[in-house]
Amino acid sequence: MKESVQPAEGKLGILIPGLGAVATTFIAGVEAVKKGIAQPIGSLTQTSNIRVGKRTENKYPKIKDFVPLTDLNDIVFGGWDVYSDNVYDAAINAKVLEPALLNQIKDELSALVPMTAAFDKRFAKNLDGTNVKTFTTKYDLAEQLIADIRNFKAANNCSRLVMVWCGSTEIYQEETEVHTTLAAFEEGLHNNHPDIAPSMIYAYAAVKEGVPFANGAPNLSVDIPAIVELAKLTETPIAGKDFKTGQTLMKTIVAPGLSARALGVRGWFSTNILGNRDGWVLDDPDNFKTKEVSKLSVLEEIFQPEINPELYGELYHKVRINYYPPHGDNKESWDNIDIFGWLGYPMQIKINFLCRDSILAAPIVLDLALFMDLAKRANMSGVQEWLSFYLKSPQTAPGLKPEHDIFKQLMKLQNTLRHIMGEDLITHLGLDYYQDLVESM
Amino acid sequence: MKESVQPAEGKLGILIPGLGAVATTFIAGVEAVKKGIAQPIGSLTQTSNIRVGKRTENKYPKIKDFVPLTDLNDIVFGGWDVYSDNVYDAAINAKVLEPALLNQIKDELSALVPMTAAFDKRFAKNLDGTNVKTFTTKYDLAEQLIADIRNFKAANNCSRLVMVWCGSTEIYQEETEVHTTLAAFEEGLHNNHPDIAPSMIYAYAAVKEGVPFANGAPNLSVDIPAIVELAKLTETPIAGKDFKTGQTLMKTIVAPGLSARALGVRGWFSTNILGNRDGWVLDDPDNFKTKEVSKLSVLEEIFQPEINPELYGELYHKVRINYYPPHGDNKESWDNIDIFGWLGYPMQIKINFLCRDSILAAPIVLDLALFMDLAKRANMSGVQEWLSFYLKSPQTAPGLKPEHDIFKQLMKLQNTLRHIMGEDLITHLGLDYYQDLVESM
Amino acid sequence: MKESVQPAEGKLGILIPGLGAVATTFIAGVEAVKKGIAQPIGSLTQTSNIRVGKRTENKYPKIKDFVPLTDLNDIVFGGWDVYSDNVYDAAINAKVLEPALLNQIKDELSALVPMTAAFDKRFAKNLDGTNVKTFTTKYDLAEQLIADIRNFKAANNCSRLVMVWCGSTEIYQEETEVHTTLAAFEEGLHNNHPDIAPSMIYAYAAVKEGVPFANGAPNLSVDIPAIVELAKLTETPIAGKDFKTGQTLMKTIVAPGLSARALGVRGWFSTNILGNRDGWVLDDPDNFKTKEVSKLSVLEEIFQPEINPELYGELYHKVRINYYPPHGDNKESWDNIDIFGWLGYPMQIKINFLCRDSILAAPIVLDLALFMDLAKRANMSGVQEWLSFYLKSPQTAPGLKPEHDIFKQLMKLQNTLRHIMGEDLITHLGLDYYQDLVESM
Amino acid sequence: MKESVQPAEGKLGILIPGLGAVATTFIAGVEAVKKGIAQPIGSLTQTSNIRVGKRTENKYPKIKDFVPLTDLNDIVFGGWDVYSDNVYDAAINAKVLEPALLNQIKDELSALVPMTAAFDKRFAKNLDGTNVKTFTTKYDLAEQLIADIRNFKAANNCSRLVMVWCGSTEIYQEETEVHTTLAAFEEGLHNNHPDIAPSMIYAYAAVKEGVPFANGAPNLSVDIPAIVELAKLTETPIAGKDFKTGQTLMKTIVAPGLSARALGVRGWFSTNILGNRDGWVLDDPDNFKTKEVSKLSVLEEIFQPEINPELYGELYHKVRINYYPPHGDNKESWDNIDIFGWLGYPMQIKINFLCRDSILAAPIVLDLALFMDLAKRANMSGVQEWLSFYLKSPQTAPGLKPEHDIFKQLMKLQNTLRHIMGEDLITHLGLDYYQDLVESM
Repeated sequence: MKESVQPAEGKLGILIPGLGAVATTFIAGVEAVKKGIAQPIGSLTQTSNIRVGKRTENKYPKIKDFVPLTDLNDIVFGGWDVYSDNVYDAAINAKVLEPALLNQIKDELSALVPMTAAFDKRFAKNLDGTNVKTFTTKYDLAEQLIADIRNFKAANNCSRLVMVWCGSTEIYQEETEVHTTLAAFEEGLHNNHPDIAPSMIYAYAAVKEGVPFANGAPNLSVDIPAIVELAKLTETPIAGKDFKTGQTLMKTIVAPGLSARALGVRGWFSTNILGNRDGWVLDDPDNFKTKEVSKLSVLEEIFQPEINPELYGELYHKVRINYYPPHGDNKESWDNIDIFGWLGYPMQIKINFLCRDSILAAPIVLDLALFMDLAKRANMSGVQEWLSFYLKSPQTAPGLKPEHDIFKQLMKLQNTLRHIMGEDLITHLGLDYYQDLVESM
Repeated sequence: MKESVQPAEGKLGILIPGLGAVATTFIAGVEAVKKGIAQPIGSLTQTSNIRVGKRTENKYPKIKDFVPLTDLNDIVFGGWDVYSDNVYDAAINAKVLEPALLNQIKDELSALVPMTAAFDKRFAKNLDGTNVKTFTTKYDLAEQLIADIRNFKAANNCSRLVMVWCGSTEIYQEETEVHTTLAAFEEGLHNNHPDIAPSMIYAYAAVKEGVPFANGAPNLSVDIPAIVELAKLTETPIAGKDFKTGQTLMKTIVAPGLSARALGVRGWFSTNILGNRDGWVLDDPDNFKTKEVSKLSVLEEIFQPEINPELYGELYHKVRINYYPPHGDNKESWDNIDIFGWLGYPMQIKINFLCRDSILAAPIVLDLALFMDLAKRANMSGVQEWLSFYLKSPQTAPGLKPEHDIFKQLMKLQNTLRHIMGEDLITHLGLDYYQDLVESM
Repeated sequence: MKESVQPAEGKLGILIPGLGAVATTFIAGVEAVKKGIAQPIGSLTQTSNIRVGKRTENKYPKIKDFVPLTDLNDIVFGGWDVYSDNVYDAAINAKVLEPALLNQIKDELSALVPMTAAFDKRFAKNLDGTNVKTFTTKYDLAEQLIADIRNFKAANNCSRLVMVWCGSTEIYQEETEVHTTLAAFEEGLHNNHPDIAPSMIYAYAAVKEGVPFANGAPNLSVDIPAIVELAKLTETPIAGKDFKTGQTLMKTIVAPGLSARALGVRGWFSTNILGNRDGWVLDDPDNFKTKEVSKLSVLEEIFQPEINPELYGELYHKVRINYYPPHGDNKESWDNIDIFGWLGYPMQIKINFLCRDSILAAPIVLDLALFMDLAKRANMSGVQEWLSFYLKSPQTAPGLKPEHDIFKQLMKLQNTLRHIMGEDLITHLGLDYYQDLVESM
Repeated sequence: MKESVQPAEGKLGILIPGLGAVATTFIAGVEAVKKGIAQPIGSLTQTSNIRVGKRTENKYPKIKDFVPLTDLNDIVFGGWDVYSDNVYDAAINAKVLEPALLNQIKDELSALVPMTAAFDKRFAKNLDGTNVKTFTTKYDLAEQLIADIRNFKAANNCSRLVMVWCGSTEIYQEETEVHTTLAAFEEGLHNNHPDIAPSMIYAYAAVKEGVPFANGAPNLSVDIPAIVELAKLTETPIAGKDFKTGQTLMKTIVAPGLSARALGVRGWFSTNILGNRDGWVLDDPDNFKTKEVSKLSVLEEIFQPEINPELYGELYHKVRINYYPPHGDNKESWDNIDIFGWLGYPMQIKINFLCRDSILAAPIVLDLALFMDLAKRANMSGVQEWLSFYLKSPQTAPGLKPEHDIFKQLMKLQNTLRHIMGEDLITHLGLDYYQDLVESM
């Protein structure tokens, strides 16, 4: 497949709806890395290696040397926000990065001013925005966004664009009639259908323009048949949904370990405390429900209670998020896991994760942007399930259950990269080291 | 390969050096399961499923229905111990299982009386044994063990045997001249060479008789060239070393997760409190060193600091075990992990595992016994690296670094089972669900 | 004062509204202690010592040898419940004590059958009772309870009675007009005033009969002027409210320590998981509010932010309770405390308490019953503030702030006992050991 | 007693042996507070209030307004260290305070250069000092220190001095013959007796000069009869030993709470990780033993197992300190407490304290300095037991058991202040609020 990947020439524009804590931490980080004053830790595209060939060959190139990715120096940023602060001011307000660091890249960040946002207070009651577009129909709104995209591309002399949603969690929605076909959706845009959320309008505008779209929140956005249909038409990669950070990240690490060892689980209680804007939005029950559904689903798939009823059939899973201002962006999670082993004897695991929300999310934005652009150049359109590694609630082909086990997700991601580059896939069999068998291990 | 596996006919004898907390919990558990009064939770051979074919086929047979394993009703037990208590009394003393459960299988357990042990106080200063063999040379001791093995097999009408070491941790040893060839080793047996530990004599006796040997302690035992040489001669499977339970189990679950996400690690502090006989033996610094070396090695391989110096080059790893009688067999571990992410920002993870040592180890004994017997019937002799899933310090081919990542180990184990049964290996690529490609995913 | 205390002669009847987990654990425990098969750990009246005289005198009598308390063998039990299970069945259902223990006192417990309860579903929506009194007016209900009390006393040949509320938490109420005077309250009983809760009717019946009443739930009950007025008239001791167990117990231990050292506190997040009937009742927001108000008040008084604004003026305090069935009565709490010290530098304390709700509450029931009876015999009527040691939300004289610091509460309790017995009070001054001063230290 | 306290006129010199992390954090903090750029949180003398009179009087003056203490602006600093770094450089190296803060007081700190230290490598093997005094006899060394003290006083125009030991923990020592009388001790100084540690020579020099001496390390220092004898002769206050910070602070908060509630304790496991110079010194077993003895003693006195054998007779207490460089001065402690309650049912408490060693110690240095000076001006000579509030291992009159319960210690401290100022002592009885009794509560 290798020969068919287009090279990463020219500038890549990364467009971001929602320039809050996550986005500003991402942008400031990339600028700091470009200046050589910080490291892009947590980004697979920048720091991870990938094994190629047999274990004994000892070949572990950096991913960025293995597949053709956009160089950080070729990236330009743009975005929309309901507040008009430039990225420097927004980053200072977010209280994630130290002022001493931000001041070293103040010029670059101050120059980034958000475009006016497509906003609907009904979908985020705890937010009040002033930097918003006026419009007659949602179709008109979509056209304004398309114009923003084209203007940005021209003004910044970009050869390619990607869009990554870093905005807030919208209120809970289930798929309805208007989401089922492209035709119905476009009619809904004209009719101002109430079930079309702002994030869907961004998604529509991007995919219509052939711009890959990745969704960092649990909103439906691209995860509706109408947008999937459009993505096929325009040959555009899409991926969703909800950046996998903090507690859910730990959950998709630990749960596969328990399942691997056939340890039973009776209960899993997860609570979070955080004090940033995200915490404030999620303090509204309607918005929390969107997040809760996303967070609850992961254990179901990993434990497969339907085929392991004696181990996981009785599992009681509860997830809570608490707004707690003293912690700011320093999210803290606490998990209590009630497990049982041999002959049913009970044991407990407690995990306390003192994490930082935006620090964990920022490198995901970078990787999704670069890998979505790679997918586009490799002619891989539609749903990119191989990027489910980064997402709490991966979008898949209809009828296909998502994989939540982070290790299967990683294997899928790595073998996809090997496949793109025409290398042997890894199975970890390795009997040939012992028995002179001829196998691709 | 499927056709070449011999069926599991007749009785399988499981021989155990060391009838302490782990072995008695294992034996009592199997007897309880046979009576239908408890479940063999934590055992892959008894409760886990394995995916066969494509995800959409939804085929997940139980492992025991997929590969031909010995039925629990065909197992008989035997063993050696430095104390003469029968298994019922030893289980009561171990205080792991409730008397109410043990009393329901008292007849079966009381009938199991340990054979006299091969013991050398120099290797376990904190133990005092009375039920021990007298001998002139270590070769004589080996011959007594071989006689024990043959007598047991005949008396119990077994068609096959396996041996699983459940004895204490011996003092720290490194490989010396006497361990390098079979000839040197046998001469050492005759000369009473001080570097030949009791566990090596058990290993020698078993492998000489073609009995598969798995090593549950961090002792060298079968992990010396002399025994590997003998295993090839007698076509015997061997595997070691050190059952992966408790804190190290959690470590090989969590560390791959951090590595997957390219999160840096500055420090990892692990401490344990436990109050059983194992804790008492490990309170001696010489015995602790053997355990410490086994426990420390896992992070090195998972993080690969040599190829990820900016993430793991400075990692400070410390492991402590504390004898704490109030907890008995209820081992408790506490880990503090100092990680760093995007731009080097620090975060912390704390894990508190309230586990039960023998409850976690018992199903490993069962799985190793059944899989070693399967390997023997499948003509897979020598080192069984595919069983490294169960072991803290996996034995591998010379020059091959062990895999410690429990998810790669699981993939290796499952793909080995698929390979044995002639099924397609799994790579988790899955592009065919999206692109009509013809690939074994 | 010593001479004026009446001796504890004859039988003491302990009457309990609410024979659930706490009450049955209490009753079963006392019966087990009487049989010599268990110890009354956690009860100051049974196991604690009290220092008398100077430190150098080394005089530490048991409290029960220092003040005249009722002997456990002179206690008889009675109670009301909305379910008709006898105490043995209720204890089995509560899953707090092991059946093996309960079976040794089955006869005593089975004989205890609850009287029909005064119940109003409006005050506890998650409960459904069948063993309830029918009535026309609330005054009629009060008269039925008074008849129950008199009948119990006669039938059991008691010389004295006390009542301890062990029922559920009622929905949140604030004091209204009907609670302000005895006259208004009695009129309200006749008129079926909706603000008169069942627990107030029990309190009225008890105090009217001169029976001391202690309130283990956060309901208002005796903490209204009408009942205080009645208590003075009938010279009856009253005390409330809400047994101090689990997380709040830890809070009133740790907070005084931080305050002692002048360490600042920015945030205190407390969460609980529990799966018993209490947890189920508190899953209703109206009932939780009653508990929340009780739990939140403690930090305010201990830290005194009004006189320490720079240390405690910004404190953010949040308390959560989560119904989590896998834990049953084994309540688990987790606290995160954000503190700051010298020059404002931040630090954190995390406390994870794996407790048992009813095990912590049961000895409080015993101590309150015995001390309330002592108070009655010592002619100490009205509010017993010296028992605030046992209570989350101590009732005090009007205008007097309650002490929540458990160490001041203990000092108050112990000095009250010394005062009753005519001994010197302790001030911990102790300069006389160093300077030949003549002072009662 | 009030009238006899001398006013705090003129300058107070605070002399410190050991200008490491604690001392530099203390000094830098006082300078920052003087400039108004930081708050002296954690210091009772600067921020705490004290209740005076009845609860209803609502009188809570600041301690510094209640007793006559030296104003921070009248303090000057001096000290000795084995390294010649000035206080600014030492503070930067200690990595406790942020450079941004230190740079604002760089001039003041840079001017403070340590005097050459009295050092003996035998007492602190892990230290290597170059800034040390040469001497013939230990008496000669004492005379050099006395000369330092006099020169400092004159050069800085001080009216009064105090000395607070902030040096390292010395190796473990028990009292021997040479420590028993002043005569033997002075002979030992002349003879270079090996049992006279450097900290004793500092103590001798200070007390000989009438300078109050407080000991922040677990070394014997002033806690020997010879120095007590000298203190009486020269009418000098002395206090020791070992600043109560971190884990032991938490222990003397939580243990009194468990004891208050008559909860039994079966085991208490305490472990620490820290990476500062103190941690490095304590990595030597001989130095750790001194600390361990100091840390272990606290539970014994609080729980009084001799009078509560059924609750505390079987308590297994273990304390570990681990050198862990990734944490630096950010000491982290973890406690597991195995308790039992009603009928012996077990429960567990886990405490994880993310503290900062020097941040907790610095305000103790300030309070001890100011209170020792107050004691001197109030003619309170010899052992100051009322300051045991600050110390892990309080020094007391011979034959008198120390109080470790921090709440009794606080009561002792506060009642001592009230006593000095001629105010009523507090007993927390408070019956007069209810019964019109005339009592000093």
